[in-house]
Amino acid sequence: MPTSSRLTDPMFGSAATLAAFSDTATVQRMLDFEAALARAEASCGVIPADAAEAIAATCRAGEIDFDALAAAAVAGGNLAIPLVRQLTARVAARDAQAARYVHWGATSQDAIDTGMVLQLREALQAVDADLKALGHACAALAAQHRDTPMVARTWLQHALPTTFGLKAAGWLDALRRDLRRLDAARAQAATLQFGGAAGTLASLGAAAPAVATALGSALSLAVAPTPWHAYRDRMVEVATTLGMLTGSLGKIARDVSLMMQTEVAEVAEPTGPGRGGSSTMPHKRNPVGCAAVLTAAVRVPPLVATMLAGMVQEHERALGGWQAEWDTLPQIVTLAAGALRQMLEVVGGLQVDAARMRANLGVTHGLILAEAAMLELGGKIGRLPAHHLVEGACRRAVAEGTTLRQALGATLAEDAAHAGLMDAAALDRVCDPANYAGQAAGFVDAVLAAWRHEAGQASIERPGNPATGA
Amino acid sequence: MPTSSRLTDPMFGSAATLAAFSDTATVQRMLDFEAALARAEASCGVIPADAAEAIAATCRAGEIDFDALAAAAVAGGNLAIPLVRQLTARVAARDAQAARYVHWGATSQDAIDTGMVLQLREALQAVDADLKALGHACAALAAQHRDTPMVARTWLQHALPTTFGLKAAGWLDALRRDLRRLDAARAQAATLQFGGAAGTLASLGAAAPAVATALGSALSLAVAPTPWHAYRDRMVEVATTLGMLTGSLGKIARDVSLMMQTEVAEVAEPTGPGRGGSSTMPHKRNPVGCAAVLTAAVRVPPLVATMLAGMVQEHERALGGWQAEWDTLPQIVTLAAGALRQMLEVVGGLQVDAARMRANLGVTHGLILAEAAMLELGGKIGRLPAHHLVEGACRRAVAEGTTLRQALGATLAEDAAHAGLMDAAALDRVCDPANYAGQAAGFVDAVLAAWRHEAGQASIERPGNPATGA
Amino acid sequence: MPTSSRLTDPMFGSAATLAAFSDTATVQRMLDFEAALARAEASCGVIPADAAEAIAATCRAGEIDFDALAAAAVAGGNLAIPLVRQLTARVAARDAQAARYVHWGATSQDAIDTGMVLQLREALQAVDADLKALGHACAALAAQHRDTPMVARTWLQHALPTTFGLKAAGWLDALRRDLRRLDAARAQAATLQFGGAAGTLASLGAAAPAVATALGSALSLAVAPTPWHAYRDRMVEVATTLGMLTGSLGKIARDVSLMMQTEVAEVAEPTGPGRGGSSTMPHKRNPVGCAAVLTAAVRVPPLVATMLAGMVQEHERALGGWQAEWDTLPQIVTLAAGALRQMLEVVGGLQVDAARMRANLGVTHGLILAEAAMLELGGKIGRLPAHHLVEGACRRAVAEGTTLRQALGATLAEDAAHAGLMDAAALDRVCDPANYAGQAAGFVDAVLAAWRHEAGQASIERPGNPATGA
Amino acid sequence: MPTSSRLTDPMFGSAATLAAFSDTATVQRMLDFEAALARAEASCGVIPADAAEAIAATCRAGEIDFDALAAAAVAGGNLAIPLVRQLTARVAARDAQAARYVHWGATSQDAIDTGMVLQLREALQAVDADLKALGHACAALAAQHRDTPMVARTWLQHALPTTFGLKAAGWLDALRRDLRRLDAARAQAATLQFGGAAGTLASLGAAAPAVATALGSALSLAVAPTPWHAYRDRMVEVATTLGMLTGSLGKIARDVSLMMQTEVAEVAEPTGPGRGGSSTMPHKRNPVGCAAVLTAAVRVPPLVATMLAGMVQEHERALGGWQAEWDTLPQIVTLAAGALRQMLEVVGGLQVDAARMRANLGVTHGLILAEAAMLELGGKIGRLPAHHLVEGACRRAVAEGTTLRQALGATLAEDAAHAGLMDAAALDRVCDPANYAGQAAGFVDAVLAAWRHEAGQASIERPGNPATGA
Repeated sequence: MPTSSRLTDPMFGSAATLAAFSDTATVQRMLDFEAALARAEASCGVIPADAAEAIAATCRAGEIDFDALAAAAVAGGNLAIPLVRQLTARVAARDAQAARYVHWGATSQDAIDTGMVLQLREALQAVDADLKALGHACAALAAQHRDTPMVARTWLQHALPTTFGLKAAGWLDALRRDLRRLDAARAQAATLQFGGAAGTLASLGAAAPAVATALGSALSLAVAPTPWHAYRDRMVEVATTLGMLTGSLGKIARDVSLMMQTEVAEVAEPTGPGRGGSSTMPHKRNPVGCAAVLTAAVRVPPLVATMLAGMVQEHERALGGWQAEWDTLPQIVTLAAGALRQMLEVVGGLQVDAARMRANLGVTHGLILAEAAMLELGGKIGRLPAHHLVEGACRRAVAEGTTLRQALGATLAEDAAHAGLMDAAALDRVCDPANYAGQAAGFVDAVLAAWRHEAGQASIERPGNPATGA
Repeated sequence: MPTSSRLTDPMFGSAATLAAFSDTATVQRMLDFEAALARAEASCGVIPADAAEAIAATCRAGEIDFDALAAAAVAGGNLAIPLVRQLTARVAARDAQAARYVHWGATSQDAIDTGMVLQLREALQAVDADLKALGHACAALAAQHRDTPMVARTWLQHALPTTFGLKAAGWLDALRRDLRRLDAARAQAATLQFGGAAGTLASLGAAAPAVATALGSALSLAVAPTPWHAYRDRMVEVATTLGMLTGSLGKIARDVSLMMQTEVAEVAEPTGPGRGGSSTMPHKRNPVGCAAVLTAAVRVPPLVATMLAGMVQEHERALGGWQAEWDTLPQIVTLAAGALRQMLEVVGGLQVDAARMRANLGVTHGLILAEAAMLELGGKIGRLPAHHLVEGACRRAVAEGTTLRQALGATLAEDAAHAGLMDAAALDRVCDPANYAGQAAGFVDAVLAAWRHEAGQASIERPGNPATGA
Repeated sequence: MPTSSRLTDPMFGSAATLAAFSDTATVQRMLDFEAALARAEASCGVIPADAAEAIAATCRAGEIDFDALAAAAVAGGNLAIPLVRQLTARVAARDAQAARYVHWGATSQDAIDTGMVLQLREALQAVDADLKALGHACAALAAQHRDTPMVARTWLQHALPTTFGLKAAGWLDALRRDLRRLDAARAQAATLQFGGAAGTLASLGAAAPAVATALGSALSLAVAPTPWHAYRDRMVEVATTLGMLTGSLGKIARDVSLMMQTEVAEVAEPTGPGRGGSSTMPHKRNPVGCAAVLTAAVRVPPLVATMLAGMVQEHERALGGWQAEWDTLPQIVTLAAGALRQMLEVVGGLQVDAARMRANLGVTHGLILAEAAMLELGGKIGRLPAHHLVEGACRRAVAEGTTLRQALGATLAEDAAHAGLMDAAALDRVCDPANYAGQAAGFVDAVLAAWRHEAGQASIERPGNPATGA
Repeated sequence: MPTSSRLTDPMFGSAATLAAFSDTATVQRMLDFEAALARAEASCGVIPADAAEAIAATCRAGEIDFDALAAAAVAGGNLAIPLVRQLTARVAARDAQAARYVHWGATSQDAIDTGMVLQLREALQAVDADLKALGHACAALAAQHRDTPMVARTWLQHALPTTFGLKAAGWLDALRRDLRRLDAARAQAATLQFGGAAGTLASLGAAAPAVATALGSALSLAVAPTPWHAYRDRMVEVATTLGMLTGSLGKIARDVSLMMQTEVAEVAEPTGPGRGGSSTMPHKRNPVGCAAVLTAAVRVPPLVATMLAGMVQEHERALGGWQAEWDTLPQIVTLAAGALRQMLEVVGGLQVDAARMRANLGVTHGLILAEAAMLELGGKIGRLPAHHLVEGACRRAVAEGTTLRQALGATLAEDAAHAGLMDAAALDRVCDPANYAGQAAGFVDAVLAAWRHEAGQASIERPGNPATGA
């Protein structure tokens, strides 16, 4: 229950990652390690084969008393010690001989770290799928609204025209990079931790390398050049990667929630029963999805800092730095995955009001096209005269409560020297925001091309080579 | 389950705060708000008295379907909306008329914030008691070891003699200030949030002030000059206060764990069944309590940053900043309280090896008394000559593998001009670390006096006046 | 230059705090400590009086070679070691005997910590003055706009009417609490650090208490029961206090910047030459003050986490935790103070467009008054019938593109049973947002009363007793 | 002056990165953008060639009035606005026509972001070189001490034997991954930002793509599919990458400083004039390098959180999130680079006391070899009997104050059934820690092989393709 409570978990998490980090899964993944360890050791002749099977057959979370486990963990300082004790007792009940070989040659951290690696693998697979789906949803928006004009806002002020397609393409391009980073982080994280009590595997003697190889193979995890128990960057890279992803999602949520403001009303989150409505305030459409995403965007960055701070570990096992990961990393994954689910729902069902976008382009009565007018006129009468002329028209529009189109037309008409510079059609053209979106469409096309290119490869291409644990 | 998992909660939390922030308590405290609201409104004639009683009688967490609650919260964006809906249905089943008055005039945030305030009050009362107990434990150590010499270490290097009493007094003095800050934070936090849908209590008309006063009184909470829903400093002050407390505890844990190192061995955490031992490493005494405290000290500071970052809220209800508190503040309280419990156990049962402390004072063969020797000789032959003489003796001690006492004696003896400066007794006195602890005992006494003075007052003295909600 | 660069410091800092933390001030405040130390020791007969005067006369930053200081600090690990060396050399050039008594009995940390305390005192005095000024500016806004209706927004959606006065009063009430916390933090921080090489003042022998008292008195700093070098909560409390202040300022900036949006346009930052304008976008009024404040609100919380994390210190002098404060605490103070200056300018010159506020109340065509209408009708026909009736009117208003006033009037008129419930005047009254601001005015009055009460006391009242260093 | 002060910068920064982020460099890199922009536009026929040359010739930081720049930045909200104004005036003084084309088609953020990219490129090149050098230094240590036995410590307690070579190899393997991440981050970051006022390059009309390509080519920067002004992950990835690097360095510093403790004394930082010594405490060897690294390890993680939090940006230009990067990212780079320099000095000159390492292996009188003895005997008499036998010997060793070797010998000798199990030579062998280092040597070899393999490729291999800006 990683974000902290059964009540709030569904709000801020995703079902898949909540399941991957449930208490049951935590225990089962450690037991998966123990089962694979026993079999790997049997395959290398380190322990008897029937002992290994007896152990493996017992490695089921359903066999474990969770309350006793939690209570005993306090004194021991981690979950693995009492878990191994319970497991040993359960195995002994079946096969007293086999019980002697439980957890043979391993240390608590081997089980805990590798268990976490297995949980991450499962959780990140779900994240990967949702991230691709969100990318496709953004790509669809970008394509559909490639030429839908809207206002670009800088400093929360109207700036110039742009397109909604370019905004969606910006989201997509960020997600594309997030996906690539996720690939790298997943590959890094899928690495076995196996070092024994002090990282030397001394208790396994000469069989150690063979056991490690067999164990990695059984769990489909890479084997690193050396155990990594005191070096946490693989775990931290998962955190930073999801931190950046959450930042990207937060940016989208910020944009959507600002566009949903009552006065702006350019987009709306999808509706649904009980979703964001208010009985006493019938006009409201609360951006509940965006709020959940923005919550994650507030919570995740400091949690990433926790992971980074924890890297400063003491010798071969840390006091605090390692233990700080146990709840923090699942929280990061769950919050990021939850934000992703919410954003997928928001973007996937986003209601776009292109008419309102166009209407909002007119809020400043055309002043956002002053630059366009200056450039047009600058090409004819020089930049400085054009600047003065347009500035005057802007002041006039504000003073007279008219549009730039009208003020500029009037200004030009009043001065014989300028009268012929732009006719009505030219004025209309220059003062149409749809004509001043610059490279918006080109940028959309470039992003979509890059996305399609990489999305096509994403399922088969992974940076790094998991097989070498590099 | 605030630190994140039923399995790890007992390791990093305290029973009292885990109970205060359990899902059941979360719901019950919101229902306490609803019950008190109904009665306060009845007492002011806003709703019928029998409706209030029907509502109050139904406000029991046992009546609530938690799974449905959690599921519905996703769409609504908070717990209060579906909780009020369930409550209304339960009330309606008893008294259809009464159901109309559930949550009358209030908004979701009123129930959520005030519920949190009630949870904090309960949790912080436990923290307060444990903090006082830890203070007393440190005071006992300081008094008992007022004159126990040990080495002071700066930069993790032996520096000069000090006493273990002064070290414990330093811990105590920090906790004393933490206790005072906790008093202030508790008083601030015990404030009703009640503002209605937008913070104006408009739906209660002219009865609003009377209802607010009655509600505050019923819950024993202060009523602030204005609803504080979008201003979170009262909650954040709880976080910063516990952040500083966790820092103090982390400092103690760092000291204890360093003193417990195999090579140092000056103190040890108390033993117990399954506590910190290792079957294959019989010599080990793992500092499991310190590790849990240090874990909290890694995790809490970033969570405090989350609370601070969340303060930047939008208008009359935030997107993300408020929601980020829901799991974060309970985590902070739980981690701090858990660290406090662990430290209480560690300090309360600390095994102090005064003989080893004295032995470690000799690790540098007396070099840590070079300053003492310089000062003694400086009073007789001037500072600079004394400095040269002692420096020479230090080099000699290192080179010859002897102690400063021996080297200094030999150096003085070899030079007729210095021969009479210090006799053997004087050398023994100057080179006894117990004689160079400076004001250690005086500092211990001053801290103990301050502690006793304030501890005597602590139960009756609170900064600020809760009755005014200031 | 605490935020990091001469170029950006003026943007994010205040002149007063930049001066307090300039390199020159850093050195001078350490020298102030050295001068006061020499005189205190002379007054207690520990060093010769003329030596003290020679030292004190040399304690001027102008005498110091800053480049050499910075370079030498790398090897020594702090500024005090090379500073004392330079100072000693400068004193020796005047009085060779006096040079022997420079820094007598003190340690580097005594000079560095007490120097920081003196810098904080100066900087926080400026913060206090600006905070009071900002409070008065908010109070003026609250009083002036006590009855100016505007829309309350929750989830960035129009909710119900409120007043701009209540918004400003909310700001003020938060600042009022910040001011009280600042008082407490300033009192705590104004405490001498003086412990000698290991915190025992051993090198001063029996004279130590008298010297400490004289030194504290000379610097007008409290003397704590024990040196606090390894216990940093006094410094951290400054950080957390300013963290909360920055959060309050960030909340105001968020509100102002949202109200300044082109589509909202309810307020505007004051104008000025080169301030927030754009030559090519004549319509823009960038919220540059708010942007600077929001920048601080992003940057300060993690810096507070740094201070908290640094509390976990090793024994009698830390590796990293202490040193992390050196640049971090000045950055926090400077950013908070800069945000305060910016906000003072923004609020002090805020352009409020009450007409636009009123116009924006109508954006939803009266739907924000559905609750008001329900309550009014509920009192006559019961809550449930009223709810149905008003809901129907809301749907009708949306469908027909009319206002709630019109739709409700039409709905009532069509049904004989309801025709007499509300006449036109009653409809006008209920559908006027100014009539549904609830307790807004009362809350404004309460906050103003609390502010005036405390502002009157603030200059004479301080929590804690600086004389006891508690 | 990125860490905050001229005085502390040398302590926590590196010369190369301090230079890259000096105020002069900040201005010059923005001017480099302006010069390249003018030339690119001239090459595309957008502005006259001689205007471009006049502009480029003026783009020298020496021409700029820095104080005026800083002062004007306050009102404008960034450095680029007043810089372009100053530049335009300087150009106009030479060529009035050319002045019209300064900053043509660009926006402030284009200059600021691309300037930052250029600064990062320079700074990270220095980081890359130092990181490789540190890797080589660790590799040398690992190779030299491949078989130097020392004790492995878990929970700060002696655990089992290991080798110093394996410790150094663990450091190296982490740095190897840091180097790979740095490659990826550098490639990502080397991307042109060029979007004009709102990210559409509208003001350049149809010439925009050609200008962008020419500009990227001139600055040797990749051109992204779309401007990235509101999407900060490229910058944030630099931060997270250096955050992980700082964590790795902090881990090494923690290890070294713990090994340097007076009681442990296994390694020492290199000595040097004024480096880490103490005049009054001649025995001290302060770990000043480690302290500086640990300071960075405390400070950097929260700064990374700042960068992540800043990603939640508003529309096409942010309020606070972007501006928060300006000082934060340089601080991160500088702190990481400074930590790297310090660690290079520490590791490069590390004094290793192999004899003391071996001596410390005996602190527990052989108890750390209990596992070895159990395994040896377990092979002969079964695991459980062996366990009991060795446990008894351990208790005996502790009780009698002898070594495990002696106690085990005596125990075996006393029982006829066990007398022949191990002769003296076997006992010596089993109780020699050098014989129980497990796979330490193999792990060292594997890490060294991976390092040599990748180090050979590092100069030519970069993930991603900078030419596509991907």
